[in-house]
Amino acid sequence: MDIEKYIREIPDFPKTGVNFKDITPLLAHAEATAFCLEQLAALTESQQIDKVVGIESRGFLFGTLLAKELKAGFVPVRKGGKLPHHTLKQPYALEYGMDALEIHEDAIKKGDKVLLHDDILATGGTARAACQLIEKLGGEIVQCNFLIELEFLKGASKLKSYDVRSLLCY
Amino acid sequence: MDIEKYIREIPDFPKTGVNFKDITPLLAHAEATAFCLEQLAALTESQQIDKVVGIESRGFLFGTLLAKELKAGFVPVRKGGKLPHHTLKQPYALEYGMDALEIHEDAIKKGDKVLLHDDILATGGTARAACQLIEKLGGEIVQCNFLIELEFLKGASKLKSYDVRSLLCY
Repeated sequence: MDIEKYIREIPDFPKTGVNFKDITPLLAHAEATAFCLEQLAALTESQQIDKVVGIESRGFLFGTLLAKELKAGFVPVRKGGKLPHHTLKQPYALEYGMDALEIHEDAIKKGDKVLLHDDILATGGTARAACQLIEKLGGEIVQCNFLIELEFLKGASKLKSYDVRSLLCY
Repeated sequence: MDIEKYIREIPDFPKTGVNFKDITPLLAHAEATAFCLEQLAALTESQQIDKVVGIESRGFLFGTLLAKELKAGFVPVRKGGKLPHHTLKQPYALEYGMDALEIHEDAIKKGDKVLLHDDILATGGTARAACQLIEKLGGEIVQCNFLIELEFLKGASKLKSYDVRSLLCY
């Protein structure tokens, strides 16, 4: 199945010069979504996964599906102030200024085998911050996988110590 | 399975006097999540569903799972400015002030049978706004289902013309 035909390019979103990859046509198509899920799950090559961590909010989409497929728990990483219980916070740099991600302190147990998932790997800043949170809780990152990798932004260079896989590269 | 034991109560979140229902322990538990998904899907009583609409961002969690289970497409409804293509916008009232939800104009086709899903039905303002968006695009709302309904907030009264179902009521 040619899944690229379900990815829509939106010029100049969210700002001039950015060619946004819109995955909503893929999500709207049940067979294409099922095919991508199967391919994403296959990237883990049957390694044991205890927790799938998905980054808010588009990482929740295939993140929850992957967790079910791999019979793992799902753990959300969210923007600051959204998670209600005790959290760990990890600041990260944006193009201008800083932001932060949070994870519940009890979401990962020491030694948990973790798959980090997000829909798009761009500059890698949020994915790296999420990896730092997972490791601070004692989780072992088995793989970071993405539906789409924007290779020209070199995000994988921020995740050098991990097994980074993507279904589609641009 | 007693799924209530996977719902954690957080007093005074996000503000004093609110007893927040935290579903993250449920999501972290693969069997409990699978059980809830099966129960949520069963609420539709095998009616045809073409699209599952999930409200950002916690409605994405069981929303994507429900779409896969029901072999339907998934459509995200998001806060203003997040969806990249042409959108319809629906303002709705908050306790203080206004907010707005958006949907892609091409996400629902006239006559599509739609299941609206969110994790929690509270005052019903966001769910009603999402229903308005779906109907403006010609979708037929088969059911609105929720993991949790806070009955004392009377959200169902804002969704009177729909079949409203919830797994857990408080």
